Amino acid sequence: MPREVLFFGAGAIGAFYGSRVAQVSGINVSVVCRSNYSAVQADGFRITSPQFGDYTWKPTRVFPSPDAARKSKVAWDYVVVSTKALPNVSDDSKLLEGLVHDSTAVVLIQNGLGVEEPYARRFPQSTILSAVTIATCAQPRHGFIKHNRWTRINIGPYFTDSTSTSAKSRATTQNQTFVDLLLNGGIKDTKCDTHEKLQLVRWHKIAINAAMNPSSVLSGGANNQEMSLDPEMHTHLKALMDEVLTTAPKVVGTPFPAEFATSDQLLRSTQKNTSGSKPSMAQDWESGKAMEVEVILGNPLRLARDKGYEMPRLQTLYALIKMKELKRDQETKQQKDSKL
Amino acid sequence: MPREVLFFGAGAIGAFYGSRVAQVSGINVSVVCRSNYSAVQADGFRITSPQFGDYTWKPTRVFPSPDAARKSKVAWDYVVVSTKALPNVSDDSKLLEGLVHDSTAVVLIQNGLGVEEPYARRFPQSTILSAVTIATCAQPRHGFIKHNRWTRINIGPYFTDSTSTSAKSRATTQNQTFVDLLLNGGIKDTKCDTHEKLQLVRWHKIAINAAMNPSSVLSGGANNQEMSLDPEMHTHLKALMDEVLTTAPKVVGTPFPAEFATSDQLLRSTQKNTSGSKPSMAQDWESGKAMEVEVILGNPLRLARDKGYEMPRLQTLYALIKMKELKRDQETKQQKDSKL
Repeated sequence: MPREVLFFGAGAIGAFYGSRVAQVSGINVSVVCRSNYSAVQADGFRITSPQFGDYTWKPTRVFPSPDAARKSKVAWDYVVVSTKALPNVSDDSKLLEGLVHDSTAVVLIQNGLGVEEPYARRFPQSTILSAVTIATCAQPRHGFIKHNRWTRINIGPYFTDSTSTSAKSRATTQNQTFVDLLLNGGIKDTKCDTHEKLQLVRWHKIAINAAMNPSSVLSGGANNQEMSLDPEMHTHLKALMDEVLTTAPKVVGTPFPAEFATSDQLLRSTQKNTSGSKPSMAQDWESGKAMEVEVILGNPLRLARDKGYEMPRLQTLYALIKMKELKRDQETKQQKDSKL
Repeated sequence: MPREVLFFGAGAIGAFYGSRVAQVSGINVSVVCRSNYSAVQADGFRITSPQFGDYTWKPTRVFPSPDAARKSKVAWDYVVVSTKALPNVSDDSKLLEGLVHDSTAVVLIQNGLGVEEPYARRFPQSTILSAVTIATCAQPRHGFIKHNRWTRINIGPYFTDSTSTSAKSRATTQNQTFVDLLLNGGIKDTKCDTHEKLQLVRWHKIAINAAMNPSSVLSGGANNQEMSLDPEMHTHLKALMDEVLTTAPKVVGTPFPAEFATSDQLLRSTQKNTSGSKPSMAQDWESGKAMEVEVILGNPLRLARDKGYEMPRLQTLYALIKMKELKRDQETKQQKDSKL
């Protein structure tokens, strides 16, 4: 019997990794689409990649909703969540009810910290796997996936204080199996991590995201290179990264491995980035979309506060960007109301 | 012979205090106007005030430029500077060359820190008096001055390391005379301060301005009350004020007098402010004008750094707002260039 994998959220990242896993024999990969359902149902995904070339991927099943996936009665081995993480807007874990069973492993390919918590709470018997990717992909039109740079993805099991030894052991096996699927699908830099290591990977990415993302939005859309080259902004960004990098090991209880880049290394590489790229939050802001403020800023702050640590600059950015988003949403609502 | 006072910058604050000093017998008050010259030359100032009622003030002389004031050959006892302080845009001290003589006292009624420095450097033989006001005034149209709230003004002599004892003594006398002019003009809460006390008054106002001003601009125009009532913003504002209030005494070398309001008191009073008022920097931003970023954020930061102290949140705000202003100015320039 083939292994059944469901990708929930067929955005650029989900579709890219889904298309790679689908290359492995004996694996069925299905997708739950939202806005791109009609296009994908009709023609599948067209993928272009500097590494894998151009190819078409037709998922085993294409669902227009989680409910349609539920009605299929498939017993999913893996449900991969690759939606944007907006816990203050919607609790996506709720949408997976009836799709996740005790033997299902939920794989979260999402930005930020604390994204696992709602899933662990809702599905305490199921395995939660936590994944961080640095791949950059875009979906310029429905069903057309452009893989731009990098493929690396780190995956590790996610444990809570109440995860039993047997559940840990099962999760570790399921984690290895999923890692092998990606490796066999051609993602050669898939990394199999422990719970602690994966949390450190998340914190390390937060050091970058919590600095660059809100700073770009708050400074009126400065791009990564502009920010890293401006002297005062450089001081601010480095200090913010250092705040996170010194707090994370105290919260996780494990030091960063030596191979993790320092704030200086991160900023030097940003200074050389001539692509004009802006962080995802700035792109979301410019398209009037909700930003991942809670998972990138709010959750790190609360996780640190729970252990008695403060990150002053990060708190300042959190307060400012939350207020900025709130003001925009109030104005949008007022404009809508005045048109009624 | 009447005492000759010249107000350089006849904006709302300058015109308001000028009109009060002009009530004192034996005092000539002249003004250098910019955009409002024609209106003031023709009809003087029309002032409305909850405290002083409605009245008209015709200055002794109205000049369209510092050069016109120079050509008048008047020997000024006081030159009062009440322009917006934008040291990175223009060095207004240069405009006063030929107007300030060794016996002239320059009175700076300006926001921010470090505003005295360019004047002290350019006119080392002259007295510099430093003034801070909390009066709120507006000039809704040329020559029409609306005094809204408060009249308090603190004035003290400004000394550098090289100010001689005799220069200090003369400055203290000139300071007292100017204080008396204001008192006799009806400003009952004019405060005569020492150099150190006046610097502490400036730092205390910076604690408020450096918190509220950039936070309003960066958060998309939140008003004072909105900011003080939002829980995360409140945490940020209080921490920023405390950063300044704990740093200032170390930089100045004198503790704050007990009567100065704490961050909690300042924020409680802001929470009760239902007027919807926004800080001056937000008003400047919304009208596309230059903001007092350097005197409110840059100078405090540099004064503290010179003594080895850091203000992390303030540095973050400084970096962000400078970049935001830079981006706006670049875009404005591009738009202009593309129209040529």
